[in-house]
Amino acid sequence: MNVIYILDLVGTAAFAASGAWVGVRKHMDLFGVLVLGIVTAVGGGTLRDLLLGDIPPFSLKDETYIYIAVIVALIVFANRKHFQKFEKPLLYFDAIGLGTFVVIGATKALDFQLGWLGAVLMGVMTGTAGGVIRDILANQVPLILRREIYASACVAGGFLLVILEHLGTARPIAAIIAAVTVIIVRLLAIRYDWALPKS
Amino acid sequence: MNVIYILDLVGTAAFAASGAWVGVRKHMDLFGVLVLGIVTAVGGGTLRDLLLGDIPPFSLKDETYIYIAVIVALIVFANRKHFQKFEKPLLYFDAIGLGTFVVIGATKALDFQLGWLGAVLMGVMTGTAGGVIRDILANQVPLILRREIYASACVAGGFLLVILEHLGTARPIAAIIAAVTVIIVRLLAIRYDWALPKS
Amino acid sequence: MNVIYILDLVGTAAFAASGAWVGVRKHMDLFGVLVLGIVTAVGGGTLRDLLLGDIPPFSLKDETYIYIAVIVALIVFANRKHFQKFEKPLLYFDAIGLGTFVVIGATKALDFQLGWLGAVLMGVMTGTAGGVIRDILANQVPLILRREIYASACVAGGFLLVILEHLGTARPIAAIIAAVTVIIVRLLAIRYDWALPKS
Repeated sequence: MNVIYILDLVGTAAFAASGAWVGVRKHMDLFGVLVLGIVTAVGGGTLRDLLLGDIPPFSLKDETYIYIAVIVALIVFANRKHFQKFEKPLLYFDAIGLGTFVVIGATKALDFQLGWLGAVLMGVMTGTAGGVIRDILANQVPLILRREIYASACVAGGFLLVILEHLGTARPIAAIIAAVTVIIVRLLAIRYDWALPKS
Repeated sequence: MNVIYILDLVGTAAFAASGAWVGVRKHMDLFGVLVLGIVTAVGGGTLRDLLLGDIPPFSLKDETYIYIAVIVALIVFANRKHFQKFEKPLLYFDAIGLGTFVVIGATKALDFQLGWLGAVLMGVMTGTAGGVIRDILANQVPLILRREIYASACVAGGFLLVILEHLGTARPIAAIIAAVTVIIVRLLAIRYDWALPKS
Repeated sequence: MNVIYILDLVGTAAFAASGAWVGVRKHMDLFGVLVLGIVTAVGGGTLRDLLLGDIPPFSLKDETYIYIAVIVALIVFANRKHFQKFEKPLLYFDAIGLGTFVVIGATKALDFQLGWLGAVLMGVMTGTAGGVIRDILANQVPLILRREIYASACVAGGFLLVILEHLGTARPIAAIIAAVTVIIVRLLAIRYDWALPKS
C-alpha cells in the first residue's frame, strides 16, 4: 500500500532523528550518532522480522530505510547546535511513525499466522524496540519502561487492530483506525502529560 | 513430556516474577514491569530458538508462556508493597525453572545436531539469558556475571546432560539427573552462599 | 581460504582477550569473564549470520571459535594480575582481527545478495558488534560510539571491498586490500590518536 509505505518512511526519518539526537546529547562521535540513528529507525522491525523468520529483514531487503536513517542522522549531526528547537515538532512525526510501525508489525504477525497476543506483542515491539536498543546503547534505562504513555498507545493500537481483524474489518480500514488511534493517544499523552501508574 | 512442560511453566512463572520484581524496584511503570516479566521469562529460550533456527520461537508458537508471564507480572505489580516477603520462597521456584530451562535448552540443541560444547552453551543460555536481558534493561551489570554460583549450576547441569547422553543414558533419565543437579547446586549455593573466584 | 581462516582465528583470540580483560577490570567472576570473552569474539559474526539467515551461525557450526574464546578467556583470567602489560601488544592482533572480520562480513553479505550498503553494514557489524555487546554487558556506553577511529577503519574497509568487487577485482585481491586498509588505518589511529568529530 503506497500510503503506508510513505508513512513508514516518514516514521523511519522521525525515529532516526530521535536516535541521532540522543547520540548527540550523549556526546557520541559521528559514528555513534549514525549507529543510534539507524538502530532506532529499523531496530524494532528488524527484531520482529528475525522472530517471524522473514530473513533478511526488511531493512536489508529495501535499502531505502537505511539510506533515510543515514541521511537524517547526518543532518542532525551537522545541525547539532540548533537541533533543540526541532525537538517538539519532531514528536508529531514520531507519533506518525509509532502508529504506522505498530500497525505494520501487528498485521505482518497476523499474516505469519501468529495468535492475537503474539500479534499485539509484535506490533508493540515494532514500535518500541528501536528506542529500547537506542537507550541501551546510550546506557540509560529505556525511557519507555519508566514513564510516558508511549507504550500504552502502542498496546491500545495493537489490540484494536487485532479486534478489528477478528471482526472481519477490511485490512486497510482496520489499519487506518488502529494507526490513527495510536497517533491520537500519543499526541494527547504529550499534550496532557499522561502517565501510567508507577512502582 | 508432560512433567517437563509443567516444570517449564512453573519456571516461566518464577522467572516472570523475578523480572517484574526488578522492574518494581527500579520504579518502572506498569508497562516496564510487564516487559521485564515477559523478557525474563522467555528471553533465554527465544534467543536459543533464534540461534537454532526454530522460528517462530517457542514463545510465539505456544502463547501459554506469554500469558503466564503477563499474569504473574500483573500480580507482582498489584502486590508490589508486600512482595518483598516472597523474595526468599521465590528462589526455590526459580531454581526449578533454572534446572528445567537448562535441560530443555541442551537437549533441544542436541536434537538440532549441535556439538557438545554448543549444547552446553545453549543450555546455559536458555537458563540465564532472560535474566541477562532483564538486567541490561534495568541498566545494571548482569548479576550473573558478577557473583553467585548461579551460572555454575547451569554449566554443571549442561555438561552432565551431554555426558549422560553420550554414554547412552535414556533421555528422560539424563534430563531428570541433570535438572535435579542444577536445582540442588543452586539451592546449596543459596544456603551456603557459595561464589566463584572473582577478579 | 586457508589464510583467511587463520587470520579469523587470530582475530577471534584477540577479541576474546579484549572481552575477558574488560570482564576482569569490571571485577566479574570467572563465568562473567568467560561470557565476555566468548561474546566479544563471536558476537558480531553471530548477529550477522542471524540477519543473513545462515543458521546455525558460524560460531555454533564450527566449535573452534568458541574453544579458542574459552581458552583465551581462561588464560586472561588466570594471569589477571599481570595482564595489563599485554594491553598494548594486544592492539596489534586486535587490528588484524578487525580487518579480517570486516572483510569476511562484507563478502558474506555480497554472497547472500545484499546490496552494497547492506554489505558495508554487515562488514562493520561483524567487526564491531561483539565489542558493543561486551560494553553493554559491562554496563558502559560502547567505546566505539564515543571515540576512536576504530569504526571508521571498518567503514573504510567495507566501502573499499564493495567498490573493488564492483570493479571486478578478484575476490582474494579485494579481500586483502580491504583487510590491510582496515589494519593500517587502525594502527595509524592508535599511533597518532586520531578521532572523529564529536558532538
